[in-house]
Amino acid sequence: MEINFPPVKENPHDRISGCRFFVDKAIADLCKERPERIPERLWESMTYSLTAGGKRVRPVLCILAGEAFGASREDLIPMALACEMVHTASLIHDDLPAMDNDSMRRGKPTNHVIFGEPLALLAGDSLFLWAFEYARKGLLAGNAFPHISILEALGVLLDASGPAGICGGQVLDTDPVSAGPELEHPWTVARSKTAVLISASIQAGAILGGAEPREREAFAEFGDHLGTAFQIVDDIIDVTGEAARIGKTPGKDRILGKVTFVSVFGLEKARRMARQETFMALESLSTIKKDVADLERFPRILAERDS
Amino acid sequence: MEINFPPVKENPHDRISGCRFFVDKAIADLCKERPERIPERLWESMTYSLTAGGKRVRPVLCILAGEAFGASREDLIPMALACEMVHTASLIHDDLPAMDNDSMRRGKPTNHVIFGEPLALLAGDSLFLWAFEYARKGLLAGNAFPHISILEALGVLLDASGPAGICGGQVLDTDPVSAGPELEHPWTVARSKTAVLISASIQAGAILGGAEPREREAFAEFGDHLGTAFQIVDDIIDVTGEAARIGKTPGKDRILGKVTFVSVFGLEKARRMARQETFMALESLSTIKKDVADLERFPRILAERDS
Repeated sequence: MEINFPPVKENPHDRISGCRFFVDKAIADLCKERPERIPERLWESMTYSLTAGGKRVRPVLCILAGEAFGASREDLIPMALACEMVHTASLIHDDLPAMDNDSMRRGKPTNHVIFGEPLALLAGDSLFLWAFEYARKGLLAGNAFPHISILEALGVLLDASGPAGICGGQVLDTDPVSAGPELEHPWTVARSKTAVLISASIQAGAILGGAEPREREAFAEFGDHLGTAFQIVDDIIDVTGEAARIGKTPGKDRILGKVTFVSVFGLEKARRMARQETFMALESLSTIKKDVADLERFPRILAERDS
Repeated sequence: MEINFPPVKENPHDRISGCRFFVDKAIADLCKERPERIPERLWESMTYSLTAGGKRVRPVLCILAGEAFGASREDLIPMALACEMVHTASLIHDDLPAMDNDSMRRGKPTNHVIFGEPLALLAGDSLFLWAFEYARKGLLAGNAFPHISILEALGVLLDASGPAGICGGQVLDTDPVSAGPELEHPWTVARSKTAVLISASIQAGAILGGAEPREREAFAEFGDHLGTAFQIVDDIIDVTGEAARIGKTPGKDRILGKVTFVSVFGLEKARRMARQETFMALESLSTIKKDVADLERFPRILAERDS
């Protein structure tokens, strides 16, 4: 199958990089000062993983979606950081010895390797929960959004984080009893483990920006396809990548006996599927009558990454 | 030190038992039907611990506090159940092999003994997060409280659940590096691991009921003392209790080398401290000009329990 992507206009100011820089700076600032009531070692463990790098895909998407509807970066940042905290929390728990037992992540030793299992477990719990308190407090203090929008944006992210979202996805991915038919399995896992949180990050930004239900729906679909493409590319990189570049142990999926897009469909078919999901992501966006040029560039960037 | 407690009026209808029954029924109803998007095995694991019994102290306190300000039990129940879900989540994680490694809880095998470590970990994560989505959704649907009250009530519970609350308390309790001076340690742990969630449950109910800041403050103090007394009694029961009655392994604190009120101050002094905290809890309540008769009975019930 050949897909002709629409041409991508290069943005001279590269707002995506700028946005990522803004997010990284906000995270660095946040980590500088420990809130008094958080124990020191717990704070170290939480901020270790929060500042360990990563592409900041979710917070950047959250901000770009909100900005498309006229919200400001400064007002959106508490929600954007919450998306990243939830993601970081899930990575800390996924890496634990009882789960994937991974010792490298984003090119650094995983949280439990540095801080031990009990603290890593509690740092994950803490980030899951602090995400929402941080967003709630910051959004209220910013006084830029209606209370009902704050409640709805928090709800989208809560739903995507919990048992109907990434926690459920992780169960499907790791619990042999819960696995579905082999041909469906990679799709189910990609949607419930990856796409759901990417989609929620976009929706949360759009809701705060004041998106109409129809626009919100289009953004949700965009996020689903984008997130699924992201997961397929992840599966591909696990096979084709090198540790130094991808920052984690390559070939890990095979070692863990995981059912992935590559293990089920092979490399070539997986690549085609990634392209198709990327195309469908762009299709979903095409109904939005706002400036979504930066969001449009995203699927390509993610599809073409090699780490 | 001799403390003369004010006489407790017996309530012929025993609203506390009625309230507990109401909570148990709501939990049973909730667990009957699995939300479609939650994987079956994850749901089994979550509901196993949620229905494993327990005194339902937090949801009952949440409801009694809200009722004191005229809110209805039906309207308060989403918030009340969220308090219990957070508590249950923390127990599942506390019991994990990487933490306290306990195999009995509430007279039943712990979650990971039945479902394995990965699923128990994810069931804990799920309950932590679902608690807030369940409360948010239910409170919005009930349409009985202003949005700002919902945001504030959720905030109190979020704060008490995360790194500044019970997650931090668990770090202080289990991480040797984080332990403070021995004479302060049991107090710090009791406040940050137990009292904070009991106090938050009461505050959340009071906020939804429409408590004034001054009343809310009094309720918070009541919860702090009540929760501290509760923890002291827990430490005492760990030494004096029998497995069959307390439903968990007795003597566990000593085996784990934990610093408790009993290990630091001895049994007699710990008993006196529990009585004093109980007395101070009642003192805090005395400024409230509402019907708090049922809340007044609570400290006595908790102080005199043997399981």
